[in-house]
Amino acid sequence: MSMDLHQMAGQAREAAWTLAAVSCEKRNEALLTMADCLAEDQAAIFAANENDVARAKQEGLAAPLVGRLCFGKEKLRQVTDGLKALAELPDPIGQTTLAREITEGLKLYRVTCPIGVIGVIFESRPDALVQIASLALKSGNAVLLKGGREALETNHALCNSLRRAAKQAGLPENFAQLMESREDVAAMLKEDTLIDLIIPRGSNAFVRYIMDNSRIPVLGHADGICHVYVDQAADLDMAVNIAVDSKAQNVAVCNAMETLLVHREIASAYLPRVAEAMKAADIRLKGDASVQAIIDCEPATEEDWRTEYLDRILSIRVVDSLEQAIEHINRYGSHHTDCIVTADDEAAAQFLTRVDSAGVYRNVSTRFADGFVYGFGAEVGIATGKIHARGPMGPEGLTTYKYKLLGTGQLMAEMKHGDRHYTHRLLNEDCPL
Amino acid sequence: MSMDLHQMAGQAREAAWTLAAVSCEKRNEALLTMADCLAEDQAAIFAANENDVARAKQEGLAAPLVGRLCFGKEKLRQVTDGLKALAELPDPIGQTTLAREITEGLKLYRVTCPIGVIGVIFESRPDALVQIASLALKSGNAVLLKGGREALETNHALCNSLRRAAKQAGLPENFAQLMESREDVAAMLKEDTLIDLIIPRGSNAFVRYIMDNSRIPVLGHADGICHVYVDQAADLDMAVNIAVDSKAQNVAVCNAMETLLVHREIASAYLPRVAEAMKAADIRLKGDASVQAIIDCEPATEEDWRTEYLDRILSIRVVDSLEQAIEHINRYGSHHTDCIVTADDEAAAQFLTRVDSAGVYRNVSTRFADGFVYGFGAEVGIATGKIHARGPMGPEGLTTYKYKLLGTGQLMAEMKHGDRHYTHRLLNEDCPL
Repeated sequence: MSMDLHQMAGQAREAAWTLAAVSCEKRNEALLTMADCLAEDQAAIFAANENDVARAKQEGLAAPLVGRLCFGKEKLRQVTDGLKALAELPDPIGQTTLAREITEGLKLYRVTCPIGVIGVIFESRPDALVQIASLALKSGNAVLLKGGREALETNHALCNSLRRAAKQAGLPENFAQLMESREDVAAMLKEDTLIDLIIPRGSNAFVRYIMDNSRIPVLGHADGICHVYVDQAADLDMAVNIAVDSKAQNVAVCNAMETLLVHREIASAYLPRVAEAMKAADIRLKGDASVQAIIDCEPATEEDWRTEYLDRILSIRVVDSLEQAIEHINRYGSHHTDCIVTADDEAAAQFLTRVDSAGVYRNVSTRFADGFVYGFGAEVGIATGKIHARGPMGPEGLTTYKYKLLGTGQLMAEMKHGDRHYTHRLLNEDCPL
Repeated sequence: MSMDLHQMAGQAREAAWTLAAVSCEKRNEALLTMADCLAEDQAAIFAANENDVARAKQEGLAAPLVGRLCFGKEKLRQVTDGLKALAELPDPIGQTTLAREITEGLKLYRVTCPIGVIGVIFESRPDALVQIASLALKSGNAVLLKGGREALETNHALCNSLRRAAKQAGLPENFAQLMESREDVAAMLKEDTLIDLIIPRGSNAFVRYIMDNSRIPVLGHADGICHVYVDQAADLDMAVNIAVDSKAQNVAVCNAMETLLVHREIASAYLPRVAEAMKAADIRLKGDASVQAIIDCEPATEEDWRTEYLDRILSIRVVDSLEQAIEHINRYGSHHTDCIVTADDEAAAQFLTRVDSAGVYRNVSTRFADGFVYGFGAEVGIATGKIHARGPMGPEGLTTYKYKLLGTGQLMAEMKHGDRHYTHRLLNEDCPL
């Protein structure tokens, strides 16, 4: 597929226009056909994956990364289960979210619809390709996909299988197309009349590179600097468990805690206990002066507050008040997911309202920030910006809306002359067209 | 106010964080106080406006533009009426749009909240300043405002009055701040850590300049190349009236029709009638070869299909099918507002689903694309992109959402070990915090 990127984007646009008019039944049927085709094509997929894995080992790729690259029987079962679950979810498009009579005989409906053509750049995990392509199809969108270089053969085999399934189900196979090179990505950034949205999954620097080089709107999935704030009214047992789970359950993910904030009132009771639990979980601790006065740890600097370790390191700060905790999070955090541990409803309400993050949690681990956990089936990414979508983006995150206005010949001249009047009456009905 | 833009943006950010926690009652109270303050300050406002108008006349500004610049008693009444109407509208923030039990005792809520800090660049009309600032306050946002150079003294007087009102109502006066120069706008584009969204109202070229020079998301209010398509099943009387209203009721606005598409089957019956009506309304006609064979008009080239005249000119094309009409609109239009005139439900459904525009109309003038008409009180702009908001942006268009997750100590380790299970049960309740 050494096709010109402009031509690919044009084909995606055509596919998107066709998909916009395809019923939910047909889209769900295509998702089930995808599960069948992946099973039928498994020999070719596994063989391609073995080549990718062998090459990665030869090139000296680190073992955890090789592990993420592997796509065998168990991964195949997971993705086909995911496709079947996605087919069961309600239709994200064609939903009426506002219905209003404007004047006699004139009705306004706001109806959800696909975004159109979406470019997604993702990491080495090949199962992400199936998740992203299937979420796009469920929501009536076409996608241009760029996976990790290491997974190229596997991604080819998976994408071919999904395209075959779409065609077999009577949908345009060009709903999903694979980009192969960095040059393709650079060329995609210029296609702002054909591509509606870019979702880059990667480092902050990578997301900024995309934003700096394209007019196309970008939904960034960048840093996750997540906090747990242990309030003075916290249950300390719960606060230890939540801190350990948020930090140590998996340190290499964006929803892991990077900084623990502790109210001064309970610091001397809480810090020794959480330090012991963190050390048992093999987590290195860094703290400000107040923390160092209570437990044994390395010093933390302001730079630590801005750092996403993605590693077995935790920074800890003592704060004087809820106010200061909120300020710290809004200033140093990445607006991803932040938690307060407290038994105080008023403190929780203040925290949840004033912390400016996609996920604001009370008494639960930050590790719950995930599209599957939220019941969205899967996710295309976790948006840390505030425009369009926030947090895990499932099928609904890939929709927009249009206003459908159904009249019987109404003219603005009649309104201006006062021959007709605005009624602005809310209606409780779905759009009939 | 020759303050550093960075400092202004920081103050806006502070104001936004405060506003996010202000109740709807207090925000509505502030809107009513604004109406009072504007009335109290009217002498200063009118005097400032007289200076602006005198200077504009001296500089030879065209009469229609001088007209738009005037802000007298009638405009004051309109904006204070608007403020009172806006105070009556439901709260766009704090609304629960999803409620789901994730596992026993753990509830997820998606709740609407303000975007934060918004930069708006608008044209010379000073009443736009009051509309934009009040919509921002209603939805809990802070704004940096840049109006037309011609209206500088009026904008100052209006902004001072609104800031005084906010302070009097106990809200941060920095919810609204005026930028004065192009240098301020250029500096604003760099403040991507403090500003969440830019809404430029202006030419396509201006919107593109903003997009090319900022990482901040942009909601463009650019060209309006609107179409009316007269289907073979149209009521021809209605089609004449809608075409004339869409084109001639006001030619200088973005929701005016620029191109009329006519199905070949009814072209010879329809075109002479609409041509007569358009000529009576002093509209110059341009047509393709098929149109020229039926009525007397100038030739239209492909360039006409891409042109927003904003003038007393209309281009007309004969199409062979509904299909060709949809293709023409998706290819040459600006995704603003497009109308089909037809008595055929199936043709209408196809058009409304497949035309990729913010407004898709059946049997009603394109002039209805407006925030006040839609019942949103007013509008900050009309978004022609597809991300975040589409069409007229009222208070809801200035909101985003956050996920609030309320737990009792749930850990991801419990889920992974199978000690707890996902229930994913939809709840019919609002978020309690």
